[in-house]
Amino acid sequence: MSFAALKNDVFLRALQRQPVPYTPIWLMRQAGRYLDEYRATRARAGSFMGLAQNPSYATEVTLQPLERFPLDAAILFSDILTVPHAMGLGLEFVAGEGPQFERPIQTEAAVKALAVPDMADLQYVFDAVTMIRRELDGRVPLIGFAGSPFTIGCYMIEGQSTREYRLIKTMMFDRPDLLHHILAINAQATTAYLNAQIQAGAQAVMLFDSWGGVLPDGLYQTFSLAYMRQVIDGLIRQVDDVSIPVIAFTKGGGLWLEQIAASGCDAVGLDWTMGLGQARKRTADRVALQGNLDPMALFANEAAVRAEARRLIDDFGPVGGGGHVFNLGHGISQFTPPERVAALVDEVHQYSVRYHTDGA
Amino acid sequence: MSFAALKNDVFLRALQRQPVPYTPIWLMRQAGRYLDEYRATRARAGSFMGLAQNPSYATEVTLQPLERFPLDAAILFSDILTVPHAMGLGLEFVAGEGPQFERPIQTEAAVKALAVPDMADLQYVFDAVTMIRRELDGRVPLIGFAGSPFTIGCYMIEGQSTREYRLIKTMMFDRPDLLHHILAINAQATTAYLNAQIQAGAQAVMLFDSWGGVLPDGLYQTFSLAYMRQVIDGLIRQVDDVSIPVIAFTKGGGLWLEQIAASGCDAVGLDWTMGLGQARKRTADRVALQGNLDPMALFANEAAVRAEARRLIDDFGPVGGGGHVFNLGHGISQFTPPERVAALVDEVHQYSVRYHTDGA
Repeated sequence: MSFAALKNDVFLRALQRQPVPYTPIWLMRQAGRYLDEYRATRARAGSFMGLAQNPSYATEVTLQPLERFPLDAAILFSDILTVPHAMGLGLEFVAGEGPQFERPIQTEAAVKALAVPDMADLQYVFDAVTMIRRELDGRVPLIGFAGSPFTIGCYMIEGQSTREYRLIKTMMFDRPDLLHHILAINAQATTAYLNAQIQAGAQAVMLFDSWGGVLPDGLYQTFSLAYMRQVIDGLIRQVDDVSIPVIAFTKGGGLWLEQIAASGCDAVGLDWTMGLGQARKRTADRVALQGNLDPMALFANEAAVRAEARRLIDDFGPVGGGGHVFNLGHGISQFTPPERVAALVDEVHQYSVRYHTDGA
Repeated sequence: MSFAALKNDVFLRALQRQPVPYTPIWLMRQAGRYLDEYRATRARAGSFMGLAQNPSYATEVTLQPLERFPLDAAILFSDILTVPHAMGLGLEFVAGEGPQFERPIQTEAAVKALAVPDMADLQYVFDAVTMIRRELDGRVPLIGFAGSPFTIGCYMIEGQSTREYRLIKTMMFDRPDLLHHILAINAQATTAYLNAQIQAGAQAVMLFDSWGGVLPDGLYQTFSLAYMRQVIDGLIRQVDDVSIPVIAFTKGGGLWLEQIAASGCDAVGLDWTMGLGQARKRTADRVALQGNLDPMALFANEAAVRAEARRLIDDFGPVGGGGHVFNLGHGISQFTPPERVAALVDEVHQYSVRYHTDGA
């Protein structure tokens, strides 16, 4: 496949700790319900899966935030649960309740019946990647993504979102062999899934470990990070001599930062509980850092939004040989006023220049 | 007031890093719904508040787990929301939805109208403390407790439990002056409340910062820890020449461990994301540590429960000049099989002896 040359590579360069003129920014869940135009497309699509499974709609919503804000990257519009859906678990989005699986993995027989899905059943995702990449026409890079083996395992076993993680943790403590079996399959599936996204045109990939942070120390390493590392080890890291950077993000994983940074990724995503300056010291600029504004800060007045952005940029400090990609520490809230996002993007771009020696 | 002499002071000594023959254990929410006898008393009381506000019922349920398991401490049966209830916010327990306030603090006028409650309105709590202490008759020490100023503030502002903390965080970013006003009142109220518990007979106190861990680095210190420190600074630390140890617990606060340890507390409570060995290194035994089994481990088979307890005790290692109180990292689940609690208490008592030089 051949695509248009990239006009803005600030995001990709920052991930690789190369000099850039300013700190790039994108936002987790930037194509989403806080935008009127997203809700309009979503209504036409009829359902969340109708949107995610139709490459034209997925392309449309992926590009929407770029029309409003000068963001430095686009991210594929999709969901981390496409993989277990392709495994035959029966994904449903119940209004007001979030995603649910009709056939969660709750018996030994169900564990043993699980298999890596045929990537042909996920072709709609790869088609969306290619279509978005073409539509972007080189404006900014396109990020592909997947859930971590443990995080999709949570949904596969619990069947829905949970506060206690009782079923998956019971399996972990009671029958660790069964959980390892599931996670090994998830890791294989996720590797194939991300590689197919890369082959379809994704220019960077991010592994979302949304729930690894609920694990006990010691078991996080065994049941989440080890499988993230397996995925990262299996990824295509170059296409046509261009590097494909990998971002690893465990929400609530600050205590394990050094170990995540040693997973083979290029960048570590951080939530807001971890100071950027401290994170930088602990990783000694061996990886780039992505984050970490509290999404709730966007509900404050504009001056406060800008001040909080400056506080984080100051905390990171002079970029030197490090790399910082500004982002939220979690997905943007559906109630966010879009004008606050505009102020944030503007402040990050303007204010960060002072910390870049390559500042234009 | 005079009470019977204490027969088992292992818990109090461990909190003060004095030699003990074995690692003491108690469990957060040990008097609770996982016990049939608790549910029976709760049914007689008619409602949660009917139970909490009646000293006889509160005494009955506080003592129930001690009849089943050789725990090393009792903890007052109550709720962290008694304080805002006494402030006039109108606490209600809606079936299946958890606690709610009828009149949450959501306007500037409501913030300015807030005042430290009259401790006479909380006399039912202090009466329960004295009655429990008498009934205990010196078997084990009695722990008093309160929510941290920030944590009760979450409920006061949100009106109920929340996943996003949007209202309190919006206030924090948008009008920090208003949040500081609330937290200053909460700190004064909490200090008075814990001191009255101590005067009524509590032999140790614990400050539960259940939600401080959702704050951004830098703001946790300003909006939660600073007010916990204010409370701790104002506490009565000795009664009749006997020390009253203080335990500070911020769930999800592992990244701020050194700062919590420097808050003036005797012991820091830990959730399961922080390894005990690592926590010990980081605090250099300047405080005792309390924790930190994942409550979900109690759903595994008995051998696995015992193995997980040993893993944590081994991680803490030879106690030497340190102090370890075994506990969960969060409240026990209502679905926990009581026989697993029995196995846990037994394993901790038996296995830990090897690490105590004063081992009997």
